[in-house]
Amino acid sequence: MIEINKNFNKLEKNYLFAQISKRTQEYKTKNPKANIIKLGIGDVTLPICDVVLKAMHKAVDEMGSEKTFRGYGPYEGYEFLRQAISSSYVKYGIDIGANEIYVSDGAKSDTANIIEIFDITGNVLIPNPTYPVYVDSNILAGNNICYIEASESNNFLPLPNNEVKADLIYLCSPNNPTGAVYSKEQLKIWVDYALRNKAIILFDAAYEPFIEDESLPHSIFEIEGAKECAVESCSFSKGAGFTGIRCGYITIPNELKLNGIKAGDMWLRRQSMKFNGVSYITQRGAEAALSEEGRRQILKNINYYKENARILSEALKSKGIWHIGGKNSPYIWMKCPSKMKSWDFFDSLLETLNIVGTPGAGFGNSGEGYFRFSSFGNHEDVLEAASRFKKFNF
Amino acid sequence: MIEINKNFNKLEKNYLFAQISKRTQEYKTKNPKANIIKLGIGDVTLPICDVVLKAMHKAVDEMGSEKTFRGYGPYEGYEFLRQAISSSYVKYGIDIGANEIYVSDGAKSDTANIIEIFDITGNVLIPNPTYPVYVDSNILAGNNICYIEASESNNFLPLPNNEVKADLIYLCSPNNPTGAVYSKEQLKIWVDYALRNKAIILFDAAYEPFIEDESLPHSIFEIEGAKECAVESCSFSKGAGFTGIRCGYITIPNELKLNGIKAGDMWLRRQSMKFNGVSYITQRGAEAALSEEGRRQILKNINYYKENARILSEALKSKGIWHIGGKNSPYIWMKCPSKMKSWDFFDSLLETLNIVGTPGAGFGNSGEGYFRFSSFGNHEDVLEAASRFKKFNF
Repeated sequence: MIEINKNFNKLEKNYLFAQISKRTQEYKTKNPKANIIKLGIGDVTLPICDVVLKAMHKAVDEMGSEKTFRGYGPYEGYEFLRQAISSSYVKYGIDIGANEIYVSDGAKSDTANIIEIFDITGNVLIPNPTYPVYVDSNILAGNNICYIEASESNNFLPLPNNEVKADLIYLCSPNNPTGAVYSKEQLKIWVDYALRNKAIILFDAAYEPFIEDESLPHSIFEIEGAKECAVESCSFSKGAGFTGIRCGYITIPNELKLNGIKAGDMWLRRQSMKFNGVSYITQRGAEAALSEEGRRQILKNINYYKENARILSEALKSKGIWHIGGKNSPYIWMKCPSKMKSWDFFDSLLETLNIVGTPGAGFGNSGEGYFRFSSFGNHEDVLEAASRFKKFNF
Repeated sequence: MIEINKNFNKLEKNYLFAQISKRTQEYKTKNPKANIIKLGIGDVTLPICDVVLKAMHKAVDEMGSEKTFRGYGPYEGYEFLRQAISSSYVKYGIDIGANEIYVSDGAKSDTANIIEIFDITGNVLIPNPTYPVYVDSNILAGNNICYIEASESNNFLPLPNNEVKADLIYLCSPNNPTGAVYSKEQLKIWVDYALRNKAIILFDAAYEPFIEDESLPHSIFEIEGAKECAVESCSFSKGAGFTGIRCGYITIPNELKLNGIKAGDMWLRRQSMKFNGVSYITQRGAEAALSEEGRRQILKNINYYKENARILSEALKSKGIWHIGGKNSPYIWMKCPSKMKSWDFFDSLLETLNIVGTPGAGFGNSGEGYFRFSSFGNHEDVLEAASRFKKFNF
């Protein structure tokens, strides 16, 4: 018999951002003149930088000439891009070879697909609140999820509970949704826990380009022992602005083995079966983004978003609103005023200030009572939002 | 406990094309002066046509301007591309709406991933020989595979055995690897079988652009009843030459329901969780490929490959070698001379004629004793290969 995969029934029905969009649209229909400012979805708004555009134009031209045309590329990505990524690890004192890097069409695909190479009989440990993909992909796989609570009391940076055993651990730092960033000392505690429990850490470093504090780790591989217990997912989306171009990569050290088999070999086998590589044009763009000039141009964009975050954070501070993030992260995570629930605050903010954010409860029940702002918007919009905040009686 | 997914152990270790590449390289090392002609892998060689290049250049420029920049796109693909695909069905008398089309990064991803939305307790029916991804993805999912034999006696176009019950059926027409093409009457037998058994057909139409015989079906949806029991996977790889650009789509009719739920809704839920859409630049290229001018330019490329196939077929015919395909298909499927085994013939052909093809046994044990040639090579190479064939004592 063929039926719908029953695990789909266990998933939340309403996807968070679809719900936000629906409520916003309804308000807009009733109030067509409202000037709504969207600080909700974590999508970038600044255009792709010149050096990347130039590289993509050149790659398009190459595809148009018989001598330079490229068909199927390597499943793991072109050597030129993997070499550039390998070099980008050097400035953090990390030695990762090009053969430990696997290019993909984005961090979402990687973080969702990586679990296919594992058989997990114990717990999958996921912080709560969290990026919903970690939860949904594990529900669909039928894995047993165990939540670890992030809260004000641990600055939204939970550490392992030694009484709970885990097989797979999701860590996202800088965190989505909270903007909290683990220190090296804190990550060392996680790595030691993973090594003791023979667990694997999936480290999501998608927001790493926003780190400015030099003491904070950009990569899990800055931590001793991590190569034996961690894989790292990275993205060109938030730094280089590739949300609509699609490129990411996952780093699987050669030291990471299960049943004596290199986890990277299994991942390549999975990718070669279910994936056919990333567009050559995209890979040339990603390579350019990692060049010296690319980094310089991208830093300007990141600083633009950071200035947005600073302005929002200042406005909240001036009103005495508890919040974290906004530094070393594009997200601000605030406590809803007057113990309001997340969705109530969403409605209140939309109706009184015409500002859209993301209800914390959408990231898990530990996010209830909190609210996320994204700094990826337009500068003038952010200034206007801050000025509305300041006039508002929270 | 976390271990390697045990289903990986059930997969064939040596990937077919890796093995071909290895043997070819070894011969080349021993015979550095040999002029080896590769008619093995099904990768295109002609450059992308002008109208597609122009559309991609324009899209790159749009990504560089704040006003026209695009971030995350719809998970199912942009409306402009889905509309163009919907229109492309009209010439075959098929009514498929844009909301029944789901754009992806390629047919391989789709055919491998689609099984995630199903719970299959019975058999998955796969022709033998076959495109290996159907088999591997079902092994990895732990599904029970039942092979249906394609052979000379059924012209490599097997029809259902009513005594065997199946839940999911893979049909590829024009076929990879055999080049055989089902008639409408034959597909009707499959559709009726699927409806009777409440089974689903996964119809792989990746090679549809090569059909020239007007009586042959380009789509399973030309068959009455197919909308209730079939999904169709299509690709821009072989026609428009997108093997290195990555774009395909899967068509899931609104009529296709399981447990009362639209299969398309489940697929979109799967894609929204594990996939983040296709590059905007790629989608604009694909849209251009479907334009009138795009089709005209692409047809020139297809005719170039078809001429290659004709030349190879003529050469084999002149030597009295049994083969099918090469018409309505880029592949030629020949019987190895003197009852040779596939890999023995591979070695013999490489050593005596310096020609590389694909051993039929690599596509399943029913392919043993057969051999595949691809017509995607360079015209001069194909002429040279044909002339070598003619001089050879098979």
